[in-house]
Amino acid sequence: MAEKNPIEQIRLLVTGGTIDKSYCPVEGQLSFSRTHVLAMLKQARVTLPEEKIQTLLLKDSLDLTEADREVICQAAIAAPETKLIITHGTDTMVQTAERLAAKQPAKTVVLVGAMVPYTFSNSDGLFNLGLAFGAAQLLPAGVFVAMNGRIFPWHVVRKNKAQGIFESTGK
Amino acid sequence: MAEKNPIEQIRLLVTGGTIDKSYCPVEGQLSFSRTHVLAMLKQARVTLPEEKIQTLLLKDSLDLTEADREVICQAAIAAPETKLIITHGTDTMVQTAERLAAKQPAKTVVLVGAMVPYTFSNSDGLFNLGLAFGAAQLLPAGVFVAMNGRIFPWHVVRKNKAQGIFESTGK
Amino acid sequence: MAEKNPIEQIRLLVTGGTIDKSYCPVEGQLSFSRTHVLAMLKQARVTLPEEKIQTLLLKDSLDLTEADREVICQAAIAAPETKLIITHGTDTMVQTAERLAAKQPAKTVVLVGAMVPYTFSNSDGLFNLGLAFGAAQLLPAGVFVAMNGRIFPWHVVRKNKAQGIFESTGK
Amino acid sequence: MAEKNPIEQIRLLVTGGTIDKSYCPVEGQLSFSRTHVLAMLKQARVTLPEEKIQTLLLKDSLDLTEADREVICQAAIAAPETKLIITHGTDTMVQTAERLAAKQPAKTVVLVGAMVPYTFSNSDGLFNLGLAFGAAQLLPAGVFVAMNGRIFPWHVVRKNKAQGIFESTGK
Repeated sequence: MAEKNPIEQIRLLVTGGTIDKSYCPVEGQLSFSRTHVLAMLKQARVTLPEEKIQTLLLKDSLDLTEADREVICQAAIAAPETKLIITHGTDTMVQTAERLAAKQPAKTVVLVGAMVPYTFSNSDGLFNLGLAFGAAQLLPAGVFVAMNGRIFPWHVVRKNKAQGIFESTGK
Repeated sequence: MAEKNPIEQIRLLVTGGTIDKSYCPVEGQLSFSRTHVLAMLKQARVTLPEEKIQTLLLKDSLDLTEADREVICQAAIAAPETKLIITHGTDTMVQTAERLAAKQPAKTVVLVGAMVPYTFSNSDGLFNLGLAFGAAQLLPAGVFVAMNGRIFPWHVVRKNKAQGIFESTGK
Repeated sequence: MAEKNPIEQIRLLVTGGTIDKSYCPVEGQLSFSRTHVLAMLKQARVTLPEEKIQTLLLKDSLDLTEADREVICQAAIAAPETKLIITHGTDTMVQTAERLAAKQPAKTVVLVGAMVPYTFSNSDGLFNLGLAFGAAQLLPAGVFVAMNGRIFPWHVVRKNKAQGIFESTGK
Repeated sequence: MAEKNPIEQIRLLVTGGTIDKSYCPVEGQLSFSRTHVLAMLKQARVTLPEEKIQTLLLKDSLDLTEADREVICQAAIAAPETKLIITHGTDTMVQTAERLAAKQPAKTVVLVGAMVPYTFSNSDGLFNLGLAFGAAQLLPAGVFVAMNGRIFPWHVVRKNKAQGIFESTGK
């Protein structure tokens, strides 16, 4: 029997955040037009079917409401796949992770974002997405955050806003 | 007691390959000048100490000799860390993985490369390096290949040269 | 007698604007840290001596005061070179051009900027700077704006903010 | 009467060269697939109609035959526009310029290329194309080379292959 391609067990839920911000030349500001995740996966030469990429929201995570988080939780629960990668703004990523964990989904859920938008030439987004792909495939059920080359269980991570990095609360 | 940062268990061994190729304007060809891995990790906002990045070779993997592979194996064995990421050309990545596996190192060894050099704007290198970081931290001892968003044990992977992707030999 | 390299007649005055904006990961916003013009000229393989690049200001052009414009005018007058390229935000580029023209400098002055910061992978900044280099070397004394592949005398150009392009007032 | 947009007087003839080289992941080499000039002009926010971009050849300029150069000359003569930009490999750019000059076209012809392909993140191609746009619009009839931030009449320029720059033969 042919071995299953584990990529087929992955669904990618897009919620916005820095990773997906674009520069709007007319406004002179960063804003959302559409997700870059499909372009990122093409660049990464990953063959995740387009229908597995689901855009739930395109919001700065500081603007997420409780209703938005519920949308994310419901999509995570409803997904037929067991491995979920959720792109998310970094400022409230841990809050959403906590909400997801409270739902106790029998799935591996990896939240990931970027400190610099993918549209910038020096973005960390592509690396982080790769990290999340590794984490989603290898971790057991649970909710995790993948940032700065590390993978954190949701309950031991915080964003250090002054330094712009995610760190363990245990140290 | 403070939790250990798992990144500190990682050593990165550079051997060259497409990921590190640069364009030489005078020659009009791709060649090696120095590794881009340090710049890549800085872009990824990963704080791996510079001394953990060890350049063994800068070669196209088609040009690797048996002596070169022995250099790679010895460096893997000698490394004090238990998590090794080895950047490597894709054409003979699986051969080197096999050689490494024969040494049975009590370490997690992840080989990674790129189909498009990091110096190109559409490189898969940064994503792949992120994938390898995830894999190295989460996998048990053994030798693995991280490419195309997937992580393969060394003995079930091959490069499909016609399509330019790594695939499982089991399917 | 050796022919003079016309690049030696060029001085580059930096005032800020979109072309020089960087992404600040901690603030999550675009801001100025330092000019990218030197890196741009290195990328362009242009050998303008570093001392010919003079940073006067690093401001969004909507924030320029009359005093700032006077600084720009005085620097233009004081410059020993006869060919000046001034990087400038697009929103009030034409206003500064008008102020410069009123001083009637016996020099070729080319104002240039970008609609997308150089730090974005799809920036127009590098092209525009090339356009300005061509214009500065070939035009007679006067004040000009180089944007969107075109070169406009200062008195017949306006920014069409809705479309994000510079256009001739004569059409 | 409305002023004419001088961009409308420009035609862009593509012949290949480093500027248009792409990385072929399967071959592991640089090669031509299609021209990047249209993408470059879009990035530059220049509204040259697509039909004004004419791909004559996609060749390394070392591989150009006399017949190829005749194709370029005939296209230059046949063009209804008076301002021609020709993208060309750098190694024999001056030879083609000489052939074009011998035809004495009553047009401004600017040859331009790149030392680093546009597909690399540190390419000079976009700057050079901007320089050529400035030169084509401002120069009188004649044949010119636009490289390294400079504009040279065809008969006083040579490529310094050791340094990878174009320089005046007069110095």
